Amino acid sequence: MSTDLDEVLATTRAIRRLDWDRPVDRALVDACLRLARYAPSGMNRQRWRFVAVDDPELRAGIARHYREAFTERYAGTTLDGIAASARTLAESLHRVPVLVLACVAGRPEPSAAPERVSSYYGSIYPAVWSFMLAARARGLGTTLTTVHLARAAAIADLLGLPCDTAQIALIPVGHVRPGAFTTPRRLPLEAVAAWNRWPG
Amino acid sequence: MSTDLDEVLATTRAIRRLDWDRPVDRALVDACLRLARYAPSGMNRQRWRFVAVDDPELRAGIARHYREAFTERYAGTTLDGIAASARTLAESLHRVPVLVLACVAGRPEPSAAPERVSSYYGSIYPAVWSFMLAARARGLGTTLTTVHLARAAAIADLLGLPCDTAQIALIPVGHVRPGAFTTPRRLPLEAVAAWNRWPG
Repeated sequence: MSTDLDEVLATTRAIRRLDWDRPVDRALVDACLRLARYAPSGMNRQRWRFVAVDDPELRAGIARHYREAFTERYAGTTLDGIAASARTLAESLHRVPVLVLACVAGRPEPSAAPERVSSYYGSIYPAVWSFMLAARARGLGTTLTTVHLARAAAIADLLGLPCDTAQIALIPVGHVRPGAFTTPRRLPLEAVAAWNRWPG
Repeated sequence: MSTDLDEVLATTRAIRRLDWDRPVDRALVDACLRLARYAPSGMNRQRWRFVAVDDPELRAGIARHYREAFTERYAGTTLDGIAASARTLAESLHRVPVLVLACVAGRPEPSAAPERVSSYYGSIYPAVWSFMLAARARGLGTTLTTVHLARAAAIADLLGLPCDTAQIALIPVGHVRPGAFTTPRRLPLEAVAAWNRWPG
């Protein structure tokens, strides 16, 4: 089990094909959530809320809503590459051992200034990513998806979420198949970063 | 230098009082940005753009705009706790050795559906947080701020950002003073997480 930071940062890729049949110990998920709490949030408000779902019926319910949203979104599109892999995930979501729903207690105001909106999401995504990194270090694969948000009301109903709690992302969690954690290809640094002034 | 993932996740707290007088080697910042590139982004589009600013005049310019935005935002408020520490940062921003501006090439549509907005921010904040974790492992303190966005146009002008590039967050970077990386207090897990259904 690798726990070297640089290696974990470089190899926590989206894992959509999990070992569906191997259960995930709740203690592992709780350990990752405990670490996620140390992420920063605006004014340290810690408004993150996490619901970890391992109940088979609830997972099946979320999966049904997720598939509806997925079908609606990609209707009429040819799915290849990442989208094809996303379809496999959508079709198998009920088999994923644990679905973690990342939420925020409180919604952004509809007409909020850019700095408020960015701060809102910047107060939940670092915790989400900490969770995913901690999971990877424990041999658990994850991916980050927001497709389900088109069915947020139905999912809130299913899980009994308070009405002021906003869903942000869904993180399917499972053990990985051998060799899953490789370093993904990325653009060279020069294409995405510059010193002092943007070139051109 | 600690590189154990769990320890880094638990101790990467917001550092607003840096060792202002110790320069930061560009190679250290580049190493952190290289690792940040391995974070996930929607459809692997990698639309993140980072501008690392160490030029003294540009830092002074950003600091001036930042202070204006800060003063405007907190006008008439008593600043204590985190806000007082944020004011110290605002007043000292020109002395921070490196200011990293995290941007996205492309803006969210004003009337975008929640899943699109969440995916937009979820495609930059994991990279931002990876950068901050990598920095912490190298003895560099960071914090995440969005206050400057109220002066985004002036800062874009200063750094020559393309007009379709949206600024998301500013990350001041510097060496820390001894003993800076402690584990912050957080709410207990039970207060922010639940299994299967939200309690109550």
